[in-house]
Amino acid sequence: MHDGRDIDGELARIRAEIDSADGELIDLLARRRELVARVADIKRCNGLPVYVPEREAAMLSARADEAEARGVPSGLVQDILRRIMRESYREEGQSGFRRAAPTSRPVVLIGGAGGMGCLFARYFEASGYPVRVLDRDDWSQATDLLDNVGLVLVGVPIVDTQKVIEALRGRLPDDAILADITSVKAAPLAGMLEVHDGPVVGLHPMFGHGVPSLAKQVVVHCPGRDAEGCRWLLDQLRIWGASLVTVDPSNHDRLMGAIQAQRHFATFVYGMHLMGEETDLDEILSLSSPIYRLELGMVGRLFAQEPDLYADIIYGSPEGRELARSYHRLFGELLEAYENDDRTVFMDGFARVKAWLGPLAETFLTESDALLDQARDRIDMPTDHGADATGRHGDA
Amino acid sequence: MHDGRDIDGELARIRAEIDSADGELIDLLARRRELVARVADIKRCNGLPVYVPEREAAMLSARADEAEARGVPSGLVQDILRRIMRESYREEGQSGFRRAAPTSRPVVLIGGAGGMGCLFARYFEASGYPVRVLDRDDWSQATDLLDNVGLVLVGVPIVDTQKVIEALRGRLPDDAILADITSVKAAPLAGMLEVHDGPVVGLHPMFGHGVPSLAKQVVVHCPGRDAEGCRWLLDQLRIWGASLVTVDPSNHDRLMGAIQAQRHFATFVYGMHLMGEETDLDEILSLSSPIYRLELGMVGRLFAQEPDLYADIIYGSPEGRELARSYHRLFGELLEAYENDDRTVFMDGFARVKAWLGPLAETFLTESDALLDQARDRIDMPTDHGADATGRHGDA
Repeated sequence: MHDGRDIDGELARIRAEIDSADGELIDLLARRRELVARVADIKRCNGLPVYVPEREAAMLSARADEAEARGVPSGLVQDILRRIMRESYREEGQSGFRRAAPTSRPVVLIGGAGGMGCLFARYFEASGYPVRVLDRDDWSQATDLLDNVGLVLVGVPIVDTQKVIEALRGRLPDDAILADITSVKAAPLAGMLEVHDGPVVGLHPMFGHGVPSLAKQVVVHCPGRDAEGCRWLLDQLRIWGASLVTVDPSNHDRLMGAIQAQRHFATFVYGMHLMGEETDLDEILSLSSPIYRLELGMVGRLFAQEPDLYADIIYGSPEGRELARSYHRLFGELLEAYENDDRTVFMDGFARVKAWLGPLAETFLTESDALLDQARDRIDMPTDHGADATGRHGDA
Repeated sequence: MHDGRDIDGELARIRAEIDSADGELIDLLARRRELVARVADIKRCNGLPVYVPEREAAMLSARADEAEARGVPSGLVQDILRRIMRESYREEGQSGFRRAAPTSRPVVLIGGAGGMGCLFARYFEASGYPVRVLDRDDWSQATDLLDNVGLVLVGVPIVDTQKVIEALRGRLPDDAILADITSVKAAPLAGMLEVHDGPVVGLHPMFGHGVPSLAKQVVVHCPGRDAEGCRWLLDQLRIWGASLVTVDPSNHDRLMGAIQAQRHFATFVYGMHLMGEETDLDEILSLSSPIYRLELGMVGRLFAQEPDLYADIIYGSPEGRELARSYHRLFGELLEAYENDDRTVFMDGFARVKAWLGPLAETFLTESDALLDQARDRIDMPTDHGADATGRHGDA
């Protein structure tokens, strides 16, 4: 053992070395950014996609092997590289993209003033398209705004979608794409096919407008008419890094609409219930494990956003209503067993769901463990100043 | 624009430079690990805690400033450093800890064969305590096992806790600590105070046995008797990096027990409902946004674990039953408004919960956004091989 002074001096010396290593890390990141910017330039000029799963996987795997050989945990290196790449994707987006359309005819965003509208406006502009916004108050100038467009993208609240699509009847050039980004698909797609004879496609971006970039984001895609005529739009999404998943519109609505509606409704009820129980939020947070904090986070994020959006999703889905009803019924049945202290209902049900999930249960556990570790990295821990292990608090 | 060969060559050259920078990153990490190991040695010899919030915060802040000055996003550098530090905490744990107890009398873990028991056995052993496990079949040797112990830690299923505590009556040395790690606190604490006249303390670790280390983990702490006699155990937890939160046991049970019970019950119902709807899991996963996947993950992880543990938590809490009942009632009331297409109930409730959450709603949104970004870094994205933006697939 050293005396107190020695320890402090020795710790300070090593920590200075650690800080200097971290300074080198920052230099390295700065240098890497320049290299990535050059790759981005080449990709942009040649219209190559931002996100290339194969390159990313091969690179991660090679570095993992090198790390193990150097005695550094491969998981650590892969997590760091993934985080660096996220930043790269975001930056590649800022430096612009190749335009996939054969000509640079304008893109008209209907509802372009909303969050998603702004996001798409930024991406289209960064790819060399003239972007026009047609918002609630702009319909008197619609003829001018729609003149010679190459794409009209409808992104208005669900309740307004049909009205807006109807207002477009016969106003688009024959070869322009009519597309929407509504979170339901069957009705808007049918409406668009009705009012426009040219290329039609339905899209559902599976993300909010706050994402750092479109890389690795999923866009659901429902073909409408003239796949060849719609091709450049889908190509453009891929160039931006998005993954496209093709689905049948009524399948989409049944699954997605219902799930989203029921999920958001349950979250809403959860928030109402928390409030109704006069929960002391500070007390709960001081006691909460990362997993519970994550759950509270999922509730809180709903209420931080716009109620109209959620009301549209919830009230717009008859299937969601049916799901909420059957969930409530099942909850009541299982609650009865709970009230009667009947554990067998729980144990039997548990075993059946476990069997049904199969290997996915384990996958979910591993995946959420990794995320909870990350949550713990970030979240400030409660501190208990009642006692101190060493008497050296603040002297770290 | 270059021709195809030029582009490939140029990309390959820059990518080789990126790979080499990443190789330097690995070297840097290896060097940093050696420095951290030296800090860990000093900490261990002097009993300094692994996790020092002030040092961590000061270090992150200084590096963030440096990063901004070098044009590197501070968020990127902080995320990377947090990830590196998590690994450091884990490793510091492997190299051992100072023993906080004045003497090295044995620690007896009752239920030591379970996951939590193994975790604590490892930590006590790494801190120089002889560790003895007293499991279901070892009670015939209890007198030997309990001879001269410094601490008995009860970590058995809730239903067995009282029985086990009763079996300890009068068998511990007067100055030994009797403690438990059960997830309810009032009854075990009362039981322990009844059977043992010496130091008593109730603990509730707010984490599972799969955590990478105890650093930043929360342990709820309910004082029982003789705070001074219990002090070394709490010191030991802090040396391991844990944060202690002191609470009143009945308060703890009301809040935590109830919340956990209701939450696990709702998750159980959710899983049963998913299965009952004959959901096509593959289809759902291919369509799911990161946030929904995260929610499925929270459901899946329940069913990947032991049903008994959850049955104990759920059925062991009368308050949880009451919460589940009131949640079900409220769900029914709000469902009625949903069925009647009454949006005002939703909009009013939404506004009230939002007001009640106050600035926390925004905090939750930001926090969960960051986590969802991390989820997206990790989760394999669906790929749609129907078309390809560039015809250059696999040539990345």
